[in-house]
This record gives sequence, structure tokens and C-alpha cells, in this order.
Amino acid sequence: MTDGDTMVEVLVPGDVEQRFPGRVAAVSPTRIRVVTVAEDGSAPGATAPKVLLRGFFSSEALRRVLREHPSIEWMHSFAAGVEHVLPELSECGYDGTITNSAGIHAEPIAEWVILMMLAHAKKLPELLEHQRNREWKGERSEELGGKTLGIVGVGGIGNAIARRARGLDMEVIGTRTSGKPTEHIPEMLTPDRLHEMLPRCDYVVVATPLTSKTEGLIGEPELRAMKPEAVILNIARGRVVQTDALVRALSDGWIAGACLDVTDPEPLPSDHPLWNAPGAIVTAHTSGSSPRSMDRVVGFFCENLGLWLEGKPLRNVVDPEREY
Amino acid sequence: MTDGDTMVEVLVPGDVEQRFPGRVAAVSPTRIRVVTVAEDGSAPGATAPKVLLRGFFSSEALRRVLREHPSIEWMHSFAAGVEHVLPELSECGYDGTITNSAGIHAEPIAEWVILMMLAHAKKLPELLEHQRNREWKGERSEELGGKTLGIVGVGGIGNAIARRARGLDMEVIGTRTSGKPTEHIPEMLTPDRLHEMLPRCDYVVVATPLTSKTEGLIGEPELRAMKPEAVILNIARGRVVQTDALVRALSDGWIAGACLDVTDPEPLPSDHPLWNAPGAIVTAHTSGSSPRSMDRVVGFFCENLGLWLEGKPLRNVVDPEREY
Repeated sequence: MTDGDTMVEVLVPGDVEQRFPGRVAAVSPTRIRVVTVAEDGSAPGATAPKVLLRGFFSSEALRRVLREHPSIEWMHSFAAGVEHVLPELSECGYDGTITNSAGIHAEPIAEWVILMMLAHAKKLPELLEHQRNREWKGERSEELGGKTLGIVGVGGIGNAIARRARGLDMEVIGTRTSGKPTEHIPEMLTPDRLHEMLPRCDYVVVATPLTSKTEGLIGEPELRAMKPEAVILNIARGRVVQTDALVRALSDGWIAGACLDVTDPEPLPSDHPLWNAPGAIVTAHTSGSSPRSMDRVVGFFCENLGLWLEGKPLRNVVDPEREY
Repeated sequence: MTDGDTMVEVLVPGDVEQRFPGRVAAVSPTRIRVVTVAEDGSAPGATAPKVLLRGFFSSEALRRVLREHPSIEWMHSFAAGVEHVLPELSECGYDGTITNSAGIHAEPIAEWVILMMLAHAKKLPELLEHQRNREWKGERSEELGGKTLGIVGVGGIGNAIARRARGLDMEVIGTRTSGKPTEHIPEMLTPDRLHEMLPRCDYVVVATPLTSKTEGLIGEPELRAMKPEAVILNIARGRVVQTDALVRALSDGWIAGACLDVTDPEPLPSDHPLWNAPGAIVTAHTSGSSPRSMDRVVGFFCENLGLWLEGKPLRNVVDPEREY
């Protein structure tokens, strides 16, 4: 990908360079020249950059960078899901390599999932309400130990969740395209067996990428297949779950709760029925946020940059056919 | 403790017998005669019972049982802590064996501790407030992974907490009278080194029995020794922590939060400043409650009853000197 002799220009977001000065260049000081890219997509000083580390700047900024620098051959995305970037990139005529940060946000997201299952089991929202009312009052609480967790679409995040759930003595089942078991999920099903898994679960976590195959995957039949005391959690993308069906599932008691870090639409309008649907906890697409995230993404990008300089295959390459 | 030939009368709370009919008698059907004891302490049909399984009935009921049945030689308590029972028993002139349920409520309590640490790290109370206001708004959240948990007074509960905390990639340190490390707490300190441990911790869990040595153990010097961003959790007894010092610690920012399943006084009066002290979460002494608790306590009691019938040493015998 590089002839090994010339300097390679790498576009790095200004805030990354500010927080970790020189870290990207340190991958190969003799071969890398870092140029910072501003939030508006301008990159003064860039001549013919080949690599773009895409931070959290806007679509407009992304289009500008790509338009002004057709020399870019490889773009790494801070986000795990790239479903919204793919059409943009093909619009721009970009046909270079794309890598994503799938699995890199797994740790905080897995912690969020454990938090939400425990909050539901121990009725924390109700306990906090008693506290607000200055009432010394308990609630019938459950244990997670012995309960069954089903993970729809096991990848890096699913495995991170499974390891922690098993540490809390839960049983874990999963679905995954290959159907191959992982270290913490000995019982792995292929996605066509989702309906076998759902009625067995006390908690179901949606962790699949959003693709044309998974859009609307969880609808009325899936929600009705769950136990009435079960809870669904979504840390994937809002559109994997059909919102109307979910609202009915909660209102009519098909299931007991929904913990949603992502919703459809997003942000959720203030008059949306999900906000106060029975058993719903809605957080604002922040389960992956962590003070450690940028460090991890930059670390991963630097490793990949090392591979790229050596002409070796990159990790986390997005397959536009598969859509993730 | 029994001559092996006569039937032994065992007093069992009515609700236990109702939920697990015949389970206690099944320990030795030829040698045990179960008599149920009512909530008021009456046990019609009892002649000279030797064993009492004490459920959650009142002190008055306990005094009545012991007064009416001086033949009782061994009492097993549903509770883990027996600090309030000991003076009552000596008042009644009871000098038989006492066993407690220490460690038996460890599973739900350990889950409560994990929940509270995660709720603090991810700012769940604030996120739920945004939801109530129908606001799509995140919060700066932290990860538990990499953080340090200190457990004051490691026993069955401390070990159950430590196992789960390590499953979430936390570091765990503890204090324990013997100073001996356990499987999940390789770094164990003797109680005199508490002040070495406190400044290293992001979370400190108080898990020691309430005794004359531990009453007021956590006061101003201990709270000031903690980091300003640290959180204290109490699942032991309210009186192990000095309430006035704790209120000041929260109000003046010596520490960042307190998750309290127990308080002093208890129940907490509605005008008490702890209810809305900054960073306080107060639950109503229910961390140990679980649908599985009665099953576990009765199972433990039955094992002990088997040992007793064979004249073997009982487990969880309370040492009145040590006070637990």
C-alpha cells in the first residue's frame, strides 16, 4: 500500500493529536507525517494524504475531506457501526478501504448491559423513587444468578457481555452467523434459530450490526416469543427493533421491560411513548462512552497503521456487501 | 447433643414449613419431629423442643419461645448479623448454641454492590432523571474496569463481592482479622492497616459484622483518607459508619458518593439529611432479599441439623465473645 520510501501523510483529528501528541507519528517516525484535520473537514498543510482517521466530525466534514483529498486510500472510523457512513462514502465515490472500531467499545457497553440487568432485577428505578419520596421502603428483588441471557448477534461486544454475565453466574446463549461457540458462550445458535432461543431467556440483548438483514429483526413475533417476565436490551442500533411493536409489547405486558441505549427515531422526541412505557429505561446512546475509549481507538488504529505500512492485511476491514 | 434414640422436637416457623413442607423432618424422619412456631412465638404441640429455627419474627416472639421452652439448646438465626439478638438472648438467660446465616445472603448482596458501583460509574440516577424529563441527554460515564475496590471486613459476603468485581476487571483489596488472602483477594491486610487501604480505593465496601470493635469504625479520619472521587458502600450495619461524619463527607465533597443499604438510624426518618445528600443512594435494608434466600437458609439449617444429630460440630456458630 506504500512503497516504503516516501513519507505517508496521515490525517488525524485535531482533538486526538492534542490528547495524544505524536502518538500516531510514533508508529514510524521516518515514514509518517501527521496532518491534523479540523472539525469542519479542512486539513491545511495536507498534500496527498493516504490515510484518514475519522473522528466524530460531521458527514459534511467527511464529504469535504474526501472531496479535497482523493488520494485517501484507507479510512478508519471511530464508530463500531458504519451503516450510515457506507452510503455517504459511495455517494462521494470513495472506494478505498474502510476499517471500523467494532469491539473497541465493548468494555463500557458490556458494563452498561450488566448495570441494566441488575437495575431491572433489583428494581433500582423504584428504589430511587422511594428515596426521592424519603420513604424507607423495599421492593421484591430478583437475583441475576441462575437467570438466562440470550445475545442476538454475538461479536466483540457480545463476548464482553457474556464473560461478565457468567461472572455473575448467569447462563448465556447466543446467535451468530457462523453458529460457532466462543469461550464464554458454549451454546451458540445460527440466526435462523432465534425463535428457539427467545422463549428460554430472562434477558435478551440485541448486539447485531444494523444491516439490510437485521433491520426490524425484532418485531411482534419475536417480542411475543419472549417470556412475559423477560427484558429486552438494545445496545446495537434503534432500527434493529421495531419501535411500534416494542411500545405495544411493554404496554400490553408481552414482556416486562426494555433497556434502550439506542432508539428509532434517535434522538427520541419528547412526546414519544417510549419515554414512559412500563418497564422502559432509555439512555441517550452513551453506553459506549468511556474516558478510555479514545485511547483504545487510537491504539487500535496505530496497530493497524503498522500493519498497513508493512503491507499486511488490516484488522476490522468493513465488507460493503456484508454491510459491517 | 442427642442420645440418638428419642425423637427430637424442632421448632420451625410456619411460613418455612408451608413453603417447604416436610423438608426439615426429611433430614431424619425417624428422629425429628417438626413443630411449627407461629409469628407470636406460640408453638402449640411442642413438649420439650431442643432446636429452634428462628425466622423473621419479633423480639417479643423470640422471648416468648425461649421462656416457654427452656429445653431449647440450639437456635439458628435467619439473619447473618446477630448483634441485636445477643443481648436479648442473654437477658432471657439463654446460654445454648447460636448459629447464624452469615454468608448465606452473600449472593444477592454481592449483586447489589455491583449494581451500585455501576450505577454510580454510569450516573444512572442522573440518566433516569433525564428520562423522566423526556430529555435525550447523556452523562460523562466511567468504567469499573481498572478501578480499585476495597472491602472492609472480608467474610462470605466480601468474597462473593470480590469474585464478581474481578469478573468486571476491577482490582480488589481487603481487610480481614487474620490478614490471610482468599482466592479472589490476593492482597489482604489486617484491620490495623485500614488507613493504608482507603486512599488507594475508588470504591470502599463496608462488610464487617457490627461488634463493639467495629461500631463507628468509619468516621471522619477514614472518610477523609478516601479519594474525593471515591464512593463508600455499606451493606453491613448502619452503626459501623458514623452518620454525622458521612453526611459531612458528602456535603463537603470529601468523597463523591455513598450507597447505603443500611443506615443509622434505621428506618431513616423522612427529614434525615442522608436522603438527599449529594451522591447518596439509600435503599431500605433489602440488599439481601431474594426469592432464593429462604431456600438457602433452610438448606443450610438442614445440613447443620444433620451434623447436630450426629454430634458433630456445627457450622456458623456464633462466638459471644467475638460478637459474630
